[in-house]
Amino acid sequence: MNTVKGARWAVAAAGIKRRAASDGKKQASLDVALLELAAGSTVAAVFTQNAFCAAPVHIARAHLAASSGQQAVYCLVNSGNANAGTGNRGLRAAEQSCQGLAAVCACDAEQVLPFSTGVIGELLPVDKIQRVFPALVESLSPNNWDAAARAIMTTDTVPKLASRRIEVNGAAVNLCGITKGAGMIKPNMATMLAYIVTDAAVAADTLQALLNRAVGKSFNRITVDGDTSTNDACLLAATGGSGVSLDVDSPAWPAFEDAVCDVMQELAMAIIRDAEGATKFITLDVCGGGSTEECLVVAYAVAESPLVKTAFFASDANWGRILAAVGRAGVKNLDAERVTIALDGYTICENGGRADAYDEQRATQIMARPELVITINLGRGSHAERVWTSDLSHDYVRINAEYRT
Amino acid sequence: MNTVKGARWAVAAAGIKRRAASDGKKQASLDVALLELAAGSTVAAVFTQNAFCAAPVHIARAHLAASSGQQAVYCLVNSGNANAGTGNRGLRAAEQSCQGLAAVCACDAEQVLPFSTGVIGELLPVDKIQRVFPALVESLSPNNWDAAARAIMTTDTVPKLASRRIEVNGAAVNLCGITKGAGMIKPNMATMLAYIVTDAAVAADTLQALLNRAVGKSFNRITVDGDTSTNDACLLAATGGSGVSLDVDSPAWPAFEDAVCDVMQELAMAIIRDAEGATKFITLDVCGGGSTEECLVVAYAVAESPLVKTAFFASDANWGRILAAVGRAGVKNLDAERVTIALDGYTICENGGRADAYDEQRATQIMARPELVITINLGRGSHAERVWTSDLSHDYVRINAEYRT
Repeated sequence: MNTVKGARWAVAAAGIKRRAASDGKKQASLDVALLELAAGSTVAAVFTQNAFCAAPVHIARAHLAASSGQQAVYCLVNSGNANAGTGNRGLRAAEQSCQGLAAVCACDAEQVLPFSTGVIGELLPVDKIQRVFPALVESLSPNNWDAAARAIMTTDTVPKLASRRIEVNGAAVNLCGITKGAGMIKPNMATMLAYIVTDAAVAADTLQALLNRAVGKSFNRITVDGDTSTNDACLLAATGGSGVSLDVDSPAWPAFEDAVCDVMQELAMAIIRDAEGATKFITLDVCGGGSTEECLVVAYAVAESPLVKTAFFASDANWGRILAAVGRAGVKNLDAERVTIALDGYTICENGGRADAYDEQRATQIMARPELVITINLGRGSHAERVWTSDLSHDYVRINAEYRT
Repeated sequence: MNTVKGARWAVAAAGIKRRAASDGKKQASLDVALLELAAGSTVAAVFTQNAFCAAPVHIARAHLAASSGQQAVYCLVNSGNANAGTGNRGLRAAEQSCQGLAAVCACDAEQVLPFSTGVIGELLPVDKIQRVFPALVESLSPNNWDAAARAIMTTDTVPKLASRRIEVNGAAVNLCGITKGAGMIKPNMATMLAYIVTDAAVAADTLQALLNRAVGKSFNRITVDGDTSTNDACLLAATGGSGVSLDVDSPAWPAFEDAVCDVMQELAMAIIRDAEGATKFITLDVCGGGSTEECLVVAYAVAESPLVKTAFFASDANWGRILAAVGRAGVKNLDAERVTIALDGYTICENGGRADAYDEQRATQIMARPELVITINLGRGSHAERVWTSDLSHDYVRINAEYRT
C-alpha cells in the first residue's frame, strides 16, 4: 500500500464493536479510526440520499460546508453503531464527539467530520469514543491505511484497500483509498463509507465534480440487496502534499481521473466480492439500450431478483429467470424477439427464447464459475451500462437473521 | 366448497410434473386441469405484463378475443412446464394442444384457452397432454374444484380455494375460485394462475371492468420476491347458470362485487401464506401518503427489502431496517420527522427515530407473531394502500436453489 503525503490515520478499540472470538467470548476490536488531512487540503464528499439519513451525515455535511481549508480537517469514523434513527439525541451525540476531538486537537469543531456505521437505532456511546481521543491523536501515522480499513469493518470479512501512483512531470502523485460494506448495499448518489485521498493539489469545486463522476462509475453501480444505507458517505480529499497541482486542463488530468476512477472501482468491486454470504461475483453488462435509464433499470431488475440470485448460488443455468427479470423490468415496448442474453459470451437466449445452439451442460459449467459476466443486449439503441452484484446464499439469510444478536 | 352451475372441471396426471414420493422415487402427479364454461358464459381475463410473456399467454389472449359466447369455452391448464421462453415452437405447441382438445370436444380451437405454469424454457410435451384429453372430457364434473386446485400446483404446498354465496331476490348466486403460486410472485396488472367463476349472468364488458378493479385490490397487492412471472393469468367467468342477471345498476351489485373481491383477496392472501419458505404473513399498511403511487412505492420497498424480510424471519425487532427501507424508497422531500411506524399498533418509530416509549422486549414479542401488520404513516396526505408479503427464510433459498434439480 502506498502512502499519501499529508494524510495520516490512527485507530483504536473503544469498546463499541464486539466480535465473537474463536473461544465464543466477545472481545473488543478496532472500532474507531481518525483521518487527519493536512492544512490546505481540499475535501469533496457525497452522502446517502436515504430520507432517514443518520445523525453523523447531517453533521458531516454541515461541518464540510463550514470548515476552513486553512486548517487541518479530521474525519472521525466509528464502526459498531450507526447513530441512525436516533433523533435529536443522536445529533447531539455526533456534535459532542466532534467537540471532544476538537478540544484535543486544538481546532474548531467544524474541522471535524463525523462518520458512523453499524447497528441502526442505538445511541452512540460518546463517552467510550472520547476516552480514546488522546491516544488516537498521538498515534497518527501515514502508514495506518491497513489498520484504518480494518477499524471501519462491520460484517465485512476482509479489509478493502486500493492505491495507485502516477507520474506527473517526473513527480509522483499518490492515491490511496479504503472502504467498508458487505450488506445493505445499493448506494444512491453516494456509497458505503469510503475515504480516498491524493497528495495532488486540486481545487475544491474540481474535486467535487471529479468525485461525482467517479462515484457514478463505481459505488453507484453496485448492489448486494437493493437496500440503501442511512449512513453512506464517500469522501475524496486532495492534500497537495506532492507539490503537484492539477486541473481539468492539465495534460496529466486524464491519467489522474482514470486513477481516481480505478481506485474507486476497485474498492466498489471489493464490496461485492465480500458481499454477505456471496459465492459469486457477477458483472451485468446491459447494452443496446435506448437510454442510460433503461439499461440501469434492466441491470438492477436482474441484479436484485432473488430468483436470479438463488439460481447463481445453485450454479443452475436457469436462464428463464434472467429472461423473466428482463421482461418485468418495466422497459416500455420492449421487443422480446430482439433481446439476447449471454453468459461469459455464450449466447443462451435469442429470438424470444432459448438460443438454438443452447447446450445445458455448457451453460451449467459457465454458471459454476466464481466470476462471470451476464451480457444483455436490448436490441433497441446504443446505450450501455455496467453493474456489479452477488448471489443470494444460505449464508446471506444466516448473517442477516443473526446480526444484532 | 360450493359448486357453480355451468362450470365443470376435470383433472389428469399426464406425466409432465413429477414429485419425489416419500420413498425418494419420482412419481406422476396431477398436472392437467380442464375447465368447461357452459355455452352463453362471459369470460374476462388479465395477463402478465412481462415483456417475455409465455406462449400460452399469447394464444389465450388471441383466442379469448376470437371465441364466441354462443359456444362453451374451455380452459386447458397444465403445471410442471411454463411453455415460456420457447419461441415459435412454443407457440405451435400451445396451438396444437388447443386443436387437439377442440377435436375431442367438437368445437373450434378458438374456444380453447391454454394456460401453463412451471419450469421456464422447456418445450411443452404436447403428446403427453393430448393423450389424456378423452378421459379428461369424460370426467368433467361440477364437483372437481378441489382436484383442479391440486392439479395446477407447482411449488405450492397446499391447494388454494375460496367460495362465496349471496342471495339475490331469493335466488342463490355462487362464486368459486382457485389459484396457485408461491414464488416468482409480484403480479403486475395480473396474477399467477387464478380461475374465478360465478353462475350469475354478467355482460362481458361489465365483467372485465369488475375483474380489473378486483385484481387491483387483491392479486396486484401481493409480493413474495418482486419477480413477475411470464405466465400470470387471472380469469373471471360468469356462466349465467343461476338464472340471475346482474349489472352495475342492480341493487344486488355492491354485494356481488364485494363477494368477487373477497374471493380474490382470500386467494391472493393464500398465496402469501404459502409463500416459498415463509414463516410470517405480513400486512403492510401505508397511510398518510400524498398519492397512491407513493404509498405503493414505500410499501413495496419495505415488502421487498431482503434485510427487512430476514429480520422478520429472525423475529428480530430491527425497526432500523424498516426505517431505512422507507427512507430509500424514493419519495421526494419525505420529512423523516413526520413518519411513524407501528407493529400491530405499537409505535416503534416517530420523530425521525426510535419512539420514546419503545421497549425492545415488547417489540420482539410482537415480531415473533406469525401474522402481523406494519403501519407506516408518511404524515403528508390522506392516501392509503395495503400490500401483503412474507419473510425471507433459509427455506426460500433452499427451495429456489434446488428447484429444477
